[in-house]
Amino acid sequence: MSEKGYDAHETSTVEDNVKVGEETNIWHYAHVREKAKIGKNCNLGKDVYIDTEVEIGDNVKIQNGVSVYQGVTVGDDVFLGPHMTFTNDIYPRAEGEWNIEETFVEDGVSIGAHATILSGITLGKYCMVGAGAVVTKDVHPHTLVYGNPAVVKGFVCSCGRKFGEGDISFQGKEEVVFECSDCGEKIEIKREVYRKKVE
Amino acid sequence: MSEKGYDAHETSTVEDNVKVGEETNIWHYAHVREKAKIGKNCNLGKDVYIDTEVEIGDNVKIQNGVSVYQGVTVGDDVFLGPHMTFTNDIYPRAEGEWNIEETFVEDGVSIGAHATILSGITLGKYCMVGAGAVVTKDVHPHTLVYGNPAVVKGFVCSCGRKFGEGDISFQGKEEVVFECSDCGEKIEIKREVYRKKVE
Amino acid sequence: MSEKGYDAHETSTVEDNVKVGEETNIWHYAHVREKAKIGKNCNLGKDVYIDTEVEIGDNVKIQNGVSVYQGVTVGDDVFLGPHMTFTNDIYPRAEGEWNIEETFVEDGVSIGAHATILSGITLGKYCMVGAGAVVTKDVHPHTLVYGNPAVVKGFVCSCGRKFGEGDISFQGKEEVVFECSDCGEKIEIKREVYRKKVE
Repeated sequence: MSEKGYDAHETSTVEDNVKVGEETNIWHYAHVREKAKIGKNCNLGKDVYIDTEVEIGDNVKIQNGVSVYQGVTVGDDVFLGPHMTFTNDIYPRAEGEWNIEETFVEDGVSIGAHATILSGITLGKYCMVGAGAVVTKDVHPHTLVYGNPAVVKGFVCSCGRKFGEGDISFQGKEEVVFECSDCGEKIEIKREVYRKKVE
Repeated sequence: MSEKGYDAHETSTVEDNVKVGEETNIWHYAHVREKAKIGKNCNLGKDVYIDTEVEIGDNVKIQNGVSVYQGVTVGDDVFLGPHMTFTNDIYPRAEGEWNIEETFVEDGVSIGAHATILSGITLGKYCMVGAGAVVTKDVHPHTLVYGNPAVVKGFVCSCGRKFGEGDISFQGKEEVVFECSDCGEKIEIKREVYRKKVE
Repeated sequence: MSEKGYDAHETSTVEDNVKVGEETNIWHYAHVREKAKIGKNCNLGKDVYIDTEVEIGDNVKIQNGVSVYQGVTVGDDVFLGPHMTFTNDIYPRAEGEWNIEETFVEDGVSIGAHATILSGITLGKYCMVGAGAVVTKDVHPHTLVYGNPAVVKGFVCSCGRKFGEGDISFQGKEEVVFECSDCGEKIEIKREVYRKKVE
């Protein structure tokens, strides 16, 4: 580890005036631009790009080839899969103003390989986006989505396990409660979200 | 700016015998191969690859991670979104001859993040390809397409605005005319194209 | 060619303790990690990443931006298209153990640009994955798949030609045999696979 408290491979480019937490690793050919803030114990894979002013939490794993653009905010314990992509304008043109819409990736979210997240979207806590999905709407917490466009396909525990019907421990008028057989955590899903599931 | 009239970051690789216009910026770890021609006031993002003999117009914004292969021609004022991909053979094999089919990206086209454009396709003037789309057919001018495979989802102005039904200013037997409430431009769409729209 | 018998561009990173066959080319900004084994006459494009302990056969063409992760094994004569992506965990989380599931890419397979291959999958000999496909199940030999999720769309010869109905030379109770009008090869497809074709 360098005296800065974090490691950056010699082929990477880390601009001045960035904050990078302890134990964080920045891999080959990655580029962190000025005014970016990256938490501790993160991993930035090969070719990763962190745009100016982007904020990233602690314990975040960013796999190879991911660009995190201005307007995207990433919480703690997030997994950004290989070559997933954020966008930064819904109707972009080469000329004219840039309309940055804010995108939020909340704590514990996992995004699968090669997924695409449109701008202006919030990915709720511990939700999971499947590989190759194109996400065009907000995703509720603990919800699994995939497809193009992505639709609700199930519900997931904080530990990563996908819930089956047998994990339902309570059904109320307003909510469905899953209890994880692996870690024991109970997760409440609102009825209106539960109904969105597509078989 | 360098004495060459354009800027290329020190980590990029620009081969000999290329033409690059004034005010163009070539970002980190990009690679421009010999005999490529790039216009003025362009932006080539991180990790961009411009293959040998490729021609790119003026005012073109190429976002991170885009590879522009031999056989692809890009006009003026084009936006190539983050990590979109061109292809260069429909039925490729590791062995055997390479069948390059020409792909044309006409003036003013915008391609969203992570879109895939099959080879042999023409993207008409000012058309727009949505994020994550897989484009398997030619796209008409001023047409918005998305999905996998991409289908016609609407029509767009040169300024980037998506037209609504309320923007129709004239309906003829052979055409539909939209008038943009933002910039005032009138765009004529042929009936046969208008009919292709999928709700 | 270097005295090692293979070429690696000066901007690439090849770690110690790797095996790379003769006539293999490693392009700009690629990264080959320790204990990887790469065959002869291969091509590793720009930004390619070969993870530790990965094994790759002979005559393999890996296009720009491809990451081959631990757990993926690649045979001979394989084509990995531009920016296609492997994954390495079905339900990943930033924290917790990594569950590597093995992925096999058999001899002669072609994977189109921007395709996504989920982990734990076997791609059978000479199968072909279309551009932008998201492959969620095993693919049988000589089968063409595409879409999100990918489904069977046809059958292909070892030479890369797509078979038409007119190429059927024999129909048995258990199999359908195609004869390629280009190269003359006969390919037997099991009935149960043939039936999976989606028009």
